[in-house]
Amino acid sequence: MSKTEKDFVQEITPQEQDFSRWYIDVIKKADLMDYSPVRGCIVFKPDGYELWEAIQRGMDRRFKETGHRNAYFPLFIPESFFQKEKEHVEGFNPELPWVTEAGGEKLEERLAIRPTSETIIGHMYAQWIQSYRDLPVLINQWCNVVRWEKRTLPFLRTSEFLWQEGHTAHATEEEAREETLRMLEVYRDCVENDLAIPVIKGQKTPSEKFAGAVDTYSIEGMMKDGKALQAGTSHYLGENFARGFDIKFLDRDNQLKYAHTTSWGSSTRLIGALIMVHGDDRGLALPPKMAPTQVVMIPVGPTKFREKVMAAFDPVFTQLKNAGVRVKADTREEHSPGWKFNEYEMRGVPLRLEIGPRDVDNNQVLLVRRDTGEKVPASQDNIAGTVLALLDEIQANMFTKAVRFREENSHRAETLDELNAIVTEKRGFVLAGWCGDAACEKKVKELSGATTRNIPFDPPERMPRCLCCGEQASHTVWFAKGY
Amino acid sequence: MSKTEKDFVQEITPQEQDFSRWYIDVIKKADLMDYSPVRGCIVFKPDGYELWEAIQRGMDRRFKETGHRNAYFPLFIPESFFQKEKEHVEGFNPELPWVTEAGGEKLEERLAIRPTSETIIGHMYAQWIQSYRDLPVLINQWCNVVRWEKRTLPFLRTSEFLWQEGHTAHATEEEAREETLRMLEVYRDCVENDLAIPVIKGQKTPSEKFAGAVDTYSIEGMMKDGKALQAGTSHYLGENFARGFDIKFLDRDNQLKYAHTTSWGSSTRLIGALIMVHGDDRGLALPPKMAPTQVVMIPVGPTKFREKVMAAFDPVFTQLKNAGVRVKADTREEHSPGWKFNEYEMRGVPLRLEIGPRDVDNNQVLLVRRDTGEKVPASQDNIAGTVLALLDEIQANMFTKAVRFREENSHRAETLDELNAIVTEKRGFVLAGWCGDAACEKKVKELSGATTRNIPFDPPERMPRCLCCGEQASHTVWFAKGY
Repeated sequence: MSKTEKDFVQEITPQEQDFSRWYIDVIKKADLMDYSPVRGCIVFKPDGYELWEAIQRGMDRRFKETGHRNAYFPLFIPESFFQKEKEHVEGFNPELPWVTEAGGEKLEERLAIRPTSETIIGHMYAQWIQSYRDLPVLINQWCNVVRWEKRTLPFLRTSEFLWQEGHTAHATEEEAREETLRMLEVYRDCVENDLAIPVIKGQKTPSEKFAGAVDTYSIEGMMKDGKALQAGTSHYLGENFARGFDIKFLDRDNQLKYAHTTSWGSSTRLIGALIMVHGDDRGLALPPKMAPTQVVMIPVGPTKFREKVMAAFDPVFTQLKNAGVRVKADTREEHSPGWKFNEYEMRGVPLRLEIGPRDVDNNQVLLVRRDTGEKVPASQDNIAGTVLALLDEIQANMFTKAVRFREENSHRAETLDELNAIVTEKRGFVLAGWCGDAACEKKVKELSGATTRNIPFDPPERMPRCLCCGEQASHTVWFAKGY
Repeated sequence: MSKTEKDFVQEITPQEQDFSRWYIDVIKKADLMDYSPVRGCIVFKPDGYELWEAIQRGMDRRFKETGHRNAYFPLFIPESFFQKEKEHVEGFNPELPWVTEAGGEKLEERLAIRPTSETIIGHMYAQWIQSYRDLPVLINQWCNVVRWEKRTLPFLRTSEFLWQEGHTAHATEEEAREETLRMLEVYRDCVENDLAIPVIKGQKTPSEKFAGAVDTYSIEGMMKDGKALQAGTSHYLGENFARGFDIKFLDRDNQLKYAHTTSWGSSTRLIGALIMVHGDDRGLALPPKMAPTQVVMIPVGPTKFREKVMAAFDPVFTQLKNAGVRVKADTREEHSPGWKFNEYEMRGVPLRLEIGPRDVDNNQVLLVRRDTGEKVPASQDNIAGTVLALLDEIQANMFTKAVRFREENSHRAETLDELNAIVTEKRGFVLAGWCGDAACEKKVKELSGATTRNIPFDPPERMPRCLCCGEQASHTVWFAKGY
């Protein structure tokens, strides 16, 4: 290992030594973000924002395919709106920033910066929905939201963040519940297939549900430190917001009824999930579908052969480009190939393509995988086909690796002591029975720091007894420490 | 004309009768927006937001092609930041909303909601830029901004609006000035070629420039009432913000220098421009490149032939879809073809495709252009090729029509009286000489209501005398009433 390489590697704290430090090291070194002068707010730098753009593309396409359309509602929410749904105001009030002056005058009514938009959207839906013919309303919004956080962590918990929030209204509970689960499935599909992050679908316990929801569902992913990250939530809101905001419609049977509404959201914390699920001690590792640069091409070998190498290099670049591969060529001479190898590994580029003078003689290239380190010589003929197939394989392998990691770090506990031992000595998720009593849930949290993640739709086994009180379990639940 | 059709047409006030009413009628009827309960803020409904998405696509592609990358900076700007550039604070202070409380506590320093982000971005650039090697920095941001407006007009002037703001930093004045004009040209290219709106490129007079800029450039379009709309601005900021925020770099010559910065913006007011340049008494008219639906297919003729018609209808739909045409089929039976014709004309769909039983016999379809009303029979063979060519022709024709309208409503004036007469009796832009004195500019505005739009790079003629004082003109300027 050359001096440069060694220096480089030393700048990232190893995951096993200090995962939090590793995380901060990686996002700073990969230039994804910077701290801002506003408390709890970060700057999404271009390399970080590009990941958000990739996530947006995957989500937005799926929303549109399922019949949703984008719209935009005001940033400001009049204070009185928060009073209209009791649980909602209690849940969000402590986190709100308030605009009290504007245009040189004190406002008559304070305006909150939206922490989420159920209230203002509910107000608008009440004007738009009169008849069953106006239903369903299927709208999504991409925007910024603010929740004044005391303890912040880049991408995962920041006072301002970017997200999408879907808001739908339906004629019946059945339809609204279908929508709630449809969007949960859209999240699973996008996060598993595009972000290569395996997730567990399930229902939140009452104490963990969204303020104002009847039922909240989530997808939960496991980070490399074994902690859980809620990667998307979908809420069945029942008639709660419809009653608060008077969203009523004349049904087919000529009865005036309240609409049933849903909301669902995913945010820039998914950037954090991408980093913490796939990254390693060398830095970021991006699944090919998410990677702004999928292939980096680097000429290697002594400089005197440069001309010869470039004669093969350029046509390969063009082939890849024309095939729609997001390819970048780094032909800079001020950096050594070794420096570049480290640099792009750290930045998480899924595939490196090297061409040296001997490759030219053999009509081949060398492909190096970020996910396995494997070196694959390949013919220059049909290089685009080879690369596209390899990118698919990398995408699939990264998902499989993450599934294996989750399986290796999934445990079961029959008692609180067992859970405690796991949480203290190991890492990961713990499957356990729960009686359904919030007191037991609270006790587990206080003693172990683990919270209920969700009640999985499809648990690996049914646990018969509550881990806390020993009574009969009504639910089998995943517990874990969470972000 | 059936009763339904008559009722329908009557709902839109004719342009010649009351252009402002026409505008509001059209945007309400086409369901583009709604008023919100927050003063001066509107809701962008899905049909309106889709236009913004189309504009974003056209702009974003061009920004990336010219080497810019997207990022995201905080919504909140500490009060002290506004003090660092004197003209900037004076320009924006009266319009700022202030967050004074958050998370249940009074803030030590008030936070403004961003009206534009030169200050917070300048603060960040100062950390990021140390050496000439760090330059240029070429970043764009898509976001919401707020300027507390007293008089608002949907899309054109609202307290919150959506926009993009580019912010770049360069080593030399020359480079920064090149960038300023490059982005002005990007705006012209997008607005003329995608939105089909002809614009005049030029420089703003000192009294109309951006607060804090050395020089401001704009593109100005003419609306159908003859008023001007600033459709994009690009600013050379000199060292003003670099000095305010200490953006310094060590240059090649080992000297510490201030960076030269630029900023440039375009916003959701472009939606308003689209409507007011192309719309007519039947409603919206969208250029094909902007239209969410480019072709609407409607089966016509007696219901008894429906099956026969649909046998030809579906393959035509598939052909268009596969060719990438944004096509929509309206096969609803509860609405008559006549009702649908009006509906989609009002919504501005560029091309209607009808198929009736006789068309099936003749292996043809009827194409009806929104821009000219022309009816074009076409063979079903290679219908996609025919439609794509026609869409191109419509796009070109809409631009040509708008150019012709602008030419017909462009005037020249040698004196203030002449200008006044034109402004009073006619509509449109007035070319006139100007001595360069702000007092003359102000007098024109006070007496006629017309303001300087810009000093065109390429005026149709040079006017020798100031229209106001009669002294030698230093500039030839476009005057007009503006939005």
